[in-house]
Amino acid sequence: MATIGEQASIYTEQHRMTYYECDRTGRATLATLINIAILASQDQSDALGLTTEFVQSHGVGWVVTQYSMAITRMPRLNETVTLAVRGSAYNPYFAFREFWIRDAEGQELAYITSIWVTMSQTTRKIVKIDPALVTPYHSEAVKRIPRLPRPLSFETTDETLSKPYQVRFFDIDPNRHVNNAHYFDWLLDTLPADFLLAHDLQQVDVRYENEVKYGHTVTAAANILPTAEDGSVTTSHQIRVGDEKCCDVTIKWQSTTID
Amino acid sequence: MATIGEQASIYTEQHRMTYYECDRTGRATLATLINIAILASQDQSDALGLTTEFVQSHGVGWVVTQYSMAITRMPRLNETVTLAVRGSAYNPYFAFREFWIRDAEGQELAYITSIWVTMSQTTRKIVKIDPALVTPYHSEAVKRIPRLPRPLSFETTDETLSKPYQVRFFDIDPNRHVNNAHYFDWLLDTLPADFLLAHDLQQVDVRYENEVKYGHTVTAAANILPTAEDGSVTTSHQIRVGDEKCCDVTIKWQSTTID
Repeated sequence: MATIGEQASIYTEQHRMTYYECDRTGRATLATLINIAILASQDQSDALGLTTEFVQSHGVGWVVTQYSMAITRMPRLNETVTLAVRGSAYNPYFAFREFWIRDAEGQELAYITSIWVTMSQTTRKIVKIDPALVTPYHSEAVKRIPRLPRPLSFETTDETLSKPYQVRFFDIDPNRHVNNAHYFDWLLDTLPADFLLAHDLQQVDVRYENEVKYGHTVTAAANILPTAEDGSVTTSHQIRVGDEKCCDVTIKWQSTTID
Repeated sequence: MATIGEQASIYTEQHRMTYYECDRTGRATLATLINIAILASQDQSDALGLTTEFVQSHGVGWVVTQYSMAITRMPRLNETVTLAVRGSAYNPYFAFREFWIRDAEGQELAYITSIWVTMSQTTRKIVKIDPALVTPYHSEAVKRIPRLPRPLSFETTDETLSKPYQVRFFDIDPNRHVNNAHYFDWLLDTLPADFLLAHDLQQVDVRYENEVKYGHTVTAAANILPTAEDGSVTTSHQIRVGDEKCCDVTIKWQSTTID
């Protein structure tokens, strides 16, 4: 990935982590990490005239299909971080966007890659990307975009942890879809509090399959896999509505460095 | 209330409303309104050396018991608002704090009054307010603090709307308590989406009784009262854990001015 997207414009902004964006340990939540990354990309899009209205006037909307997040350290309460984003590359059907979150000294806290598609507002099917929606980012037109890691195939066992979550009115954001950052609150809340307090996020791979809608009750299921030799732990997650798979997520954790 | 607290220091800061703080109509959520108000008061406290650690070193923590909010207009997506707060007055057991949220032209969007107590960390009982915790705000020592409106006494009827909500790990904030702004997501989510889309908040009166804890499943119940002659609607709400009342809320709404 070193060379792809080097010509793309990078947009940066600062963000201060508020108490309501952090968990009880004072670390930003995973939902917050995605929220602030997407905030920066929306601000870049708006600055380039690629507003939601402009995209909709082309009969489509952007939908994320995959995230891959490498987390060095979660932002902390009251820390001001720098968000950077670029629309790195695209091919006829997929766009590749990268995000960096850095501390005040420029140290990388998280690096997020993502794959996006344009979906027709009328047919709800994926359509070819209109170059008018990506060229202002100075996105590179490529034949192949990078492949992101695929989450583990989720397998339900006797030890699978599972909880139901009702999708709430306030889970819908101004784009009129369920903000999929909320998925992370559901996914992680399924894990025991003791586990969440004892581990730091290291790597998160997400693949979205079907949209969750207001009024749905989703099932968030999780498996905690055996601890690896290096002490890291992997958890495997799935969100379903009935029998329909909405997203698969694999997370790698390490023992926490925060007390 | 005109004269009380005039000597108290006012702290102000700006806040830009992000998409993840707004609902599908592009209005800030009620939870967000409280979150940003409290953010300003925490920043004032920190600036005056009245940090959470300092308060805890006196063996207590601040707990809000009542809010009364008069809302002219909810902040909107991408709007930068000015938050102002002052610790206006206190008597031996109660402190009175006021918040103002204003638009870029200085027009008032919301005015929030609140009553706070200090609770012993060991006995969990309300204790006399230590003047060291309030004098830096230039709070006025008074005999009586203003009384805030009491929410309607909640009555369950055949038409009462009700939903269960599990308290999640990420509902706990860095102060290690359930952020009670989440109560508003539960309370309002109980109302039909059609109602929420058709009405604007005008007045919200809240009284907290008992703390909600991680792992609890709360019941949020709501009554929509008959429409008044002026077209306003009042809703009455309660949050319970089992038979224990956690908070009562009364909300006055008007027909929405947003499409």
